[in-house]
Amino acid sequence: MKTTHGLLKHKSLPEIRAAIRAGNYTSHTAGLGGGYLQANLAIMPEAYALDFMRFCQRNPKPCPLVGVSDTGNPMLTTLGHDLDLRTDVPAYNIYRDGQLSGSTTDISDIWTDDLVGFALGCSFTFEQALQAEGIAMWHIDNDRTVPMFRSSIQTVPAGPFGGAMVVSMRAIPEDQLARTIEVSGRYPLGHGAPVHWGDPAEIGIADVTRPEWGDPAPVPPGHIPTFWACGVTPQVAVTRAKLPLCITHKPGHMLITDVPDDAEFPVISSEQNS
Amino acid sequence: MKTTHGLLKHKSLPEIRAAIRAGNYTSHTAGLGGGYLQANLAIMPEAYALDFMRFCQRNPKPCPLVGVSDTGNPMLTTLGHDLDLRTDVPAYNIYRDGQLSGSTTDISDIWTDDLVGFALGCSFTFEQALQAEGIAMWHIDNDRTVPMFRSSIQTVPAGPFGGAMVVSMRAIPEDQLARTIEVSGRYPLGHGAPVHWGDPAEIGIADVTRPEWGDPAPVPPGHIPTFWACGVTPQVAVTRAKLPLCITHKPGHMLITDVPDDAEFPVISSEQNS
Repeated sequence: MKTTHGLLKHKSLPEIRAAIRAGNYTSHTAGLGGGYLQANLAIMPEAYALDFMRFCQRNPKPCPLVGVSDTGNPMLTTLGHDLDLRTDVPAYNIYRDGQLSGSTTDISDIWTDDLVGFALGCSFTFEQALQAEGIAMWHIDNDRTVPMFRSSIQTVPAGPFGGAMVVSMRAIPEDQLARTIEVSGRYPLGHGAPVHWGDPAEIGIADVTRPEWGDPAPVPPGHIPTFWACGVTPQVAVTRAKLPLCITHKPGHMLITDVPDDAEFPVISSEQNS
Repeated sequence: MKTTHGLLKHKSLPEIRAAIRAGNYTSHTAGLGGGYLQANLAIMPEAYALDFMRFCQRNPKPCPLVGVSDTGNPMLTTLGHDLDLRTDVPAYNIYRDGQLSGSTTDISDIWTDDLVGFALGCSFTFEQALQAEGIAMWHIDNDRTVPMFRSSIQTVPAGPFGGAMVVSMRAIPEDQLARTIEVSGRYPLGHGAPVHWGDPAEIGIADVTRPEWGDPAPVPPGHIPTFWACGVTPQVAVTRAKLPLCITHKPGHMLITDVPDDAEFPVISSEQNS
């Protein structure tokens, strides 16, 4: 009983999660479960987890860590009352030795007791906030994927993880730039303020019309190309580190958490929230 | 050639660090190196580091993680250009099997290749910001240590780490409370906004005049007892976990970093700051 994005759009979070868990929804999560934090996912053997956590701590703009599972426990208890990393993402990519070896909608059969799951904040959070302020997101209005580039900005390495920061580009009208920086800066768990605006060459981007990932987007006259740290950065770092196994969400197919978008910090059902 | 707090107060950060490193300054760091982030320190064997890092991620108000060293490397490169965890804190406490076994001003002789150092933000950051707004800090003006209490608020556990949240109390005039919450909330790396204000009994504190750590402080008429998550929380968690070895700063004797107090995130000399 497959369902569609259009049908799920008006459903509650438990209904959406149930559809994903049952394998009835396997598409992208943009605009679903409005008001709840969505996250990038990276699952890896515990042997790499401390270094990856250091990598996130050292690179909070591309890798805003919002949750970490206990080793071997597929339930991410700090982000959901019933959130199962094996089934609750619409689609997964599986990397072996740094190479994409396949995609699936359920990883129950490859989950093992030594795996650790990491949830990292994503750009949906600040994009929704910008739209609410009347700042248009061209790629959303035109149903495209945001253009992404490998920049010359280097991440701060940790163990086997390092490499270039990947950035996403949104063209912002000159008179809305200050407001854009301010509003997105309020969401440090969603990449925060942009890392660069203006001349793309300054961060090593030769041609802003030719992204390495996503779809090209125009930069109309009077608009400033504005670059945010991007959640593809940790995916590239993980690939580059050639882990024997790493499982990620399929781009755009996010983990939808129980944490409200505007939570002070991303931990649920803790008495410390009282 | 010992030096005093009064003499160091007007010195530059490199001069202060040199005095501490040489063992010439072994007292508290409140008000020193103005404008730079000070941090709580916890050093432990790598075997416990992943769980401790999870504990910090799950409890960001009492344990705001600002830096993590590479295993065995005493230089905390993300927080200082030349910051040595073995010598650059004025005084250390050494815990063995959860018991305080001694204090020292230099841990070079007990540093080993399997140790990991964690720096956690401290309350100096928001206290300075509140004072700058004209909100008086009684314990500072009266040269006392802030009163601290074990609350009934429970931390979110990770591995062997867990237990009660320790809170610090500052009495705030009723008409300054809203501003106090707002201003301290701007410093998530310095414990952020208070976790509770008003009736101490609501968070399990029977007698607000009898703190478990620090000095008693008055709550004058028209003042609200206001409670912040406290950096003693991870010290209690580490003690409770009975680690074979854990080295912390001696309370009040902080690690002074090269990171400006108002940095967007606590990582220095990274090209991503450009």
